[in-house]
Amino acid sequence: MKIENVKPADIEKRSFEIIAETLEETGIDIDERYAHIIKRCIHTSADFDYARTMFFSEGVEEKIASVIRDGGYIVTDTRMAQSGINKKRIEAWGGKVLCFIGDEDVAERAAKEGLTRSYVSMEKAAELDRPVVFAIGNAPTALIAICQLFEEGKLKPEAVVGAPVGFVNVVAAKKLLISSGISCIVPRGRKGGSNIAAAIINAVQYNM
Amino acid sequence: MKIENVKPADIEKRSFEIIAETLEETGIDIDERYAHIIKRCIHTSADFDYARTMFFSEGVEEKIASVIRDGGYIVTDTRMAQSGINKKRIEAWGGKVLCFIGDEDVAERAAKEGLTRSYVSMEKAAELDRPVVFAIGNAPTALIAICQLFEEGKLKPEAVVGAPVGFVNVVAAKKLLISSGISCIVPRGRKGGSNIAAAIINAVQYNM
Repeated sequence: MKIENVKPADIEKRSFEIIAETLEETGIDIDERYAHIIKRCIHTSADFDYARTMFFSEGVEEKIASVIRDGGYIVTDTRMAQSGINKKRIEAWGGKVLCFIGDEDVAERAAKEGLTRSYVSMEKAAELDRPVVFAIGNAPTALIAICQLFEEGKLKPEAVVGAPVGFVNVVAAKKLLISSGISCIVPRGRKGGSNIAAAIINAVQYNM
Repeated sequence: MKIENVKPADIEKRSFEIIAETLEETGIDIDERYAHIIKRCIHTSADFDYARTMFFSEGVEEKIASVIRDGGYIVTDTRMAQSGINKKRIEAWGGKVLCFIGDEDVAERAAKEGLTRSYVSMEKAAELDRPVVFAIGNAPTALIAICQLFEEGKLKPEAVVGAPVGFVNVVAAKKLLISSGISCIVPRGRKGGSNIAAAIINAVQYNM
């Protein structure tokens, strides 16, 4: 197997061509309105399951784009997701990508109350003074916190990318989010991850 | 579907139990010596393909553990992988987790020479004065750079986690690494990612 000679700038383009070809060959029909988001999830994972599992609330992409354009906040549950989101454009619009998981006050309150730090970091995000989009790639407890705080009227996110990964409460937390009435993008099932959450936010901003 | 009431501290334990049960049910037989690494890759991705694709050079885990114990460097190709590696223990041993991808000198040289920043950031790592383990989760060009610099006698990594993801040169770069003689851990095929590279390093350090 030979190394192909592809120019750095062309690698991403060529990757998306291969993804499109593979989808066509395997007969998987994706929603064209969201093709750029679905393909970017496949691009970041090489996992074609994302062609079959993605849920999109009506109008969710425009809501996320509006928050970015209005200089709002993207709040993640992990530093990995925060790292993976391209911040240049978001900061150029006046916005920020925030993550509270490592904050001392979050750790203290979590230990004291027997909650996960993910949960408490969402409570902290409820105090922000600008429109917020959440990008959750790790902790189902973060999604559960968002849904509970929303239910109690304490948090009103513009949209949530609900992409935690794993085996305990992940599927249930995603179902809870989808049925909550919050505008969301969700890779249903156990799969997801910080890379997937970041890829979804990046796909939206690259499409603006 | 109900939210299970699992204590924060028990979520990871319960996840690994579900992974073990699923492997047993599906009859996938993994190498027991590396079960902790394979299971952590599945834990971070919910993707059981990692039970079938992982390659381990003889003695590679001990080599990575030695670098950590000796206060050496872990060098990643992305900030996401750097973020995902648990740094507490590594720093307690006197080591560091480094990533040069965002460095200005790297960007300048890459633009000037028509190389990827990933490639140039590996050249920069060749100048480090301590034992190095690479954790590559994104760029096949980083793996190719490592193999070329090794071939030319300019770089001698103790071990490489070769987990780039994608569609252009990823499979070929992994084959190149496996046949290079460098001690390595590789999820063969197109899959991998910054989360997988970080999970592998974390699995090794949690087993020390």
